Amino acid sequence: MIVTSRHTIATRGQGDAHDLTALVGDAIAQSSITSGLVTVFVVGSTAAITTIEFESGAVADLNRMLENLAPRDAEYRHHLRWGDDNGSSHVRAALLGPSLTVPFAGKTLTLGQWQQIIILELDTRPRRREIVVQLVGE
Amino acid sequence: MIVTSRHTIATRGQGDAHDLTALVGDAIAQSSITSGLVTVFVVGSTAAITTIEFESGAVADLNRMLENLAPRDAEYRHHLRWGDDNGSSHVRAALLGPSLTVPFAGKTLTLGQWQQIIILELDTRPRRREIVVQLVGE
Amino acid sequence: MIVTSRHTIATRGQGDAHDLTALVGDAIAQSSITSGLVTVFVVGSTAAITTIEFESGAVADLNRMLENLAPRDAEYRHHLRWGDDNGSSHVRAALLGPSLTVPFAGKTLTLGQWQQIIILELDTRPRRREIVVQLVGE
Repeated sequence: MIVTSRHTIATRGQGDAHDLTALVGDAIAQSSITSGLVTVFVVGSTAAITTIEFESGAVADLNRMLENLAPRDAEYRHHLRWGDDNGSSHVRAALLGPSLTVPFAGKTLTLGQWQQIIILELDTRPRRREIVVQLVGE
Repeated sequence: MIVTSRHTIATRGQGDAHDLTALVGDAIAQSSITSGLVTVFVVGSTAAITTIEFESGAVADLNRMLENLAPRDAEYRHHLRWGDDNGSSHVRAALLGPSLTVPFAGKTLTLGQWQQIIILELDTRPRRREIVVQLVGE
Repeated sequence: MIVTSRHTIATRGQGDAHDLTALVGDAIAQSSITSGLVTVFVVGSTAAITTIEFESGAVADLNRMLENLAPRDAEYRHHLRWGDDNGSSHVRAALLGPSLTVPFAGKTLTLGQWQQIIILELDTRPRRREIVVQLVGE
């Protein structure tokens, strides 16, 4: 059995993280699927899905590492293509990836207590993000 | 329902990226599955699958970041094992990952307009890459 | 059909890697599923699942890259929150990700010969790790 839903999240630009755990848990609760896997996918090439302990310190640490790795104000070849300023966003997003798959059983995600599913905005401006949550199971 | 297909891509060595979006879309079109998820998996430990806006600037930016992170000409312990020269390839591949899962619905991938599925070759020489495309759905 | 199993691995702290390939292969062998996908998921926000050529040199190279990227002894905002010392663990884990999905067919994982599924411990102390292996297939 397959259940697909789409959700919109308004983000505030590069480094803004949102906890999606409750949204994903609700999708499982409202379905008739008891166990299976859920794929959380962000549409677009300048955001990412991962897990982290969702507290502001850990998120800031992750963003600082990404800034060191692909500085926002560096020069990017992508900027020459479109006059964009979000080369750092594309590089970070390709590295982190747009997709996360988590098993669930007995209607419960198998996450740890301090492990939340997040969307991390990587674009240089606020965006309205479409997130696909797809359950496959029985 | 499960449909598995295998595909071969000839690559030109480290940094060479190929757009797999049409190949994956064709696998969906040719199946009798309407909605579900597709897993794109590269066989081998020196290549990766991710998404990016597939234009040469963004790909070059990603490769430059990876070169800073794991320089091709640095010393690697892996080189001592086999006399290989591809330690940078293994490190980059383990970081990016060999697998990507994307939901589809109504026979259509949920990708953004500027978001393509790519294989990124990370090995130091040209390779023939086997890619597994597996659909799970109904 | 869905088959979910849970496994415990004792790790020795940051950088310790364990080959999970045989464990995952056994889960497939013992099930009645012939083809489908397996998701390997580590519970908790300070460890990761990926693939690598599992030899000590390549693992050491990966760990050295992660140490450069998020040094263990650097200052992290996360440390201020709980008095923890594992900010580097959280950053590395969010980057690598807790989940890996691999297709199998004819009871066989589609991995390459030199490509193993690993858990990489990223926490600063030994842990008992719970790993969820979930098969979806027919």
